[in-house]
Amino acid sequence: MNDYQPSDRTTLNRRPQRGHYDRATVHAILDAGLIGHVGFVENGLPVVTPTIYWRDGGRVYFHGSIASRTIRAAAEGVPICLTVSHLDALVVARGAFYHSVNYRSVIAYGSARLVEDEAEKLAAMRRLIERLYPGRWDEIRPPNDAELGAMDVVYLDLKEVSAKVRSDTPSDLPGDLNRPAWAGLVPIAQAAGAPIPSETLAPEVPLPDYLARFGFTRNHL
Amino acid sequence: MNDYQPSDRTTLNRRPQRGHYDRATVHAILDAGLIGHVGFVENGLPVVTPTIYWRDGGRVYFHGSIASRTIRAAAEGVPICLTVSHLDALVVARGAFYHSVNYRSVIAYGSARLVEDEAEKLAAMRRLIERLYPGRWDEIRPPNDAELGAMDVVYLDLKEVSAKVRSDTPSDLPGDLNRPAWAGLVPIAQAAGAPIPSETLAPEVPLPDYLARFGFTRNHL
Repeated sequence: MNDYQPSDRTTLNRRPQRGHYDRATVHAILDAGLIGHVGFVENGLPVVTPTIYWRDGGRVYFHGSIASRTIRAAAEGVPICLTVSHLDALVVARGAFYHSVNYRSVIAYGSARLVEDEAEKLAAMRRLIERLYPGRWDEIRPPNDAELGAMDVVYLDLKEVSAKVRSDTPSDLPGDLNRPAWAGLVPIAQAAGAPIPSETLAPEVPLPDYLARFGFTRNHL
Repeated sequence: MNDYQPSDRTTLNRRPQRGHYDRATVHAILDAGLIGHVGFVENGLPVVTPTIYWRDGGRVYFHGSIASRTIRAAAEGVPICLTVSHLDALVVARGAFYHSVNYRSVIAYGSARLVEDEAEKLAAMRRLIERLYPGRWDEIRPPNDAELGAMDVVYLDLKEVSAKVRSDTPSDLPGDLNRPAWAGLVPIAQAAGAPIPSETLAPEVPLPDYLARFGFTRNHL
């Protein structure tokens, strides 16, 4: 797998050791998340909205109502910035200034494109569902024409993209190490709890395996 | 507490029932998080970067290196959009189209201001530390002049701000309810694991109470 090529915008000037441009790192950070933040410019002003996203190869997809201004802007091809961030730990140091967090983030710039082909749109929806719930697509009712028509799917080709990672212990000054203040990391992760059945669910419908895997402590999405 | 006043940009046209403008809701969503996403326009293009933030009254603060382009832009007063999002549940429906997520988000627009007064800057840093670790400020070494000078603290007055919340069961169509596919919610939360002491920590330094509270399953930040 080739690396992504750094650009002026994606090159880290401060702490360059935190920057990563290889596909494996960028893709793994994207695949570890579900909600990204899409920024675009509207009337000269910045707008940032949260959105569900999913990756397929070198593309990141997102979708929404055809009435959503983020989706409308993206479908029109206006420049966007898609940012995905994971908080991994609180970094607890002896010096106030050295308190920090461990994190992984990806920033991708570019212009999105609308998925116009109906079969391709359906296939993209299927990938979103199957990514979260492997095997589920065949159990549910697929979107009908009205539902498909109410929603747009767009994608961003990953080209101008970089990852930034801090994964380290506190970087206290040597002179602070003997201070009697606790120092270390508090790990943070997104956790899934046990599935809660809908009140309208018939009792004979079993919890599928792809959901039974949730409900454990610290089980990452 | 007065409500925030909806503006054209913060008024939800679709699903207006998801919009909230009261201070209690907006502030609670902000206070439940640590990482926000700041958008701004640079050379006409959108940039979105993750940042630690903290609230004090009707202000949201964030900080960073004086060399950070996000901090430089914010300190110069360019328009920003600060967005904070929490993923609360996967919404698992019988119809593909009705799969969704429960979430809480806040979007705040405006121009940030630089905290110029040194004492005010130090007080803001103290609030950030004390918000996460009550009582810690008196145990750690406060920032020296060089450290304070290397960092800027900025704030956004909350004025044009709104919250958006989905907190509901799957909204399947009546005709889909008898489909033999599991439906319900998978709760999601940010969880903190047990603190991991730094290798350089002297064994006699105890884990403080404000960290001992971490390490439980589903303990929200």
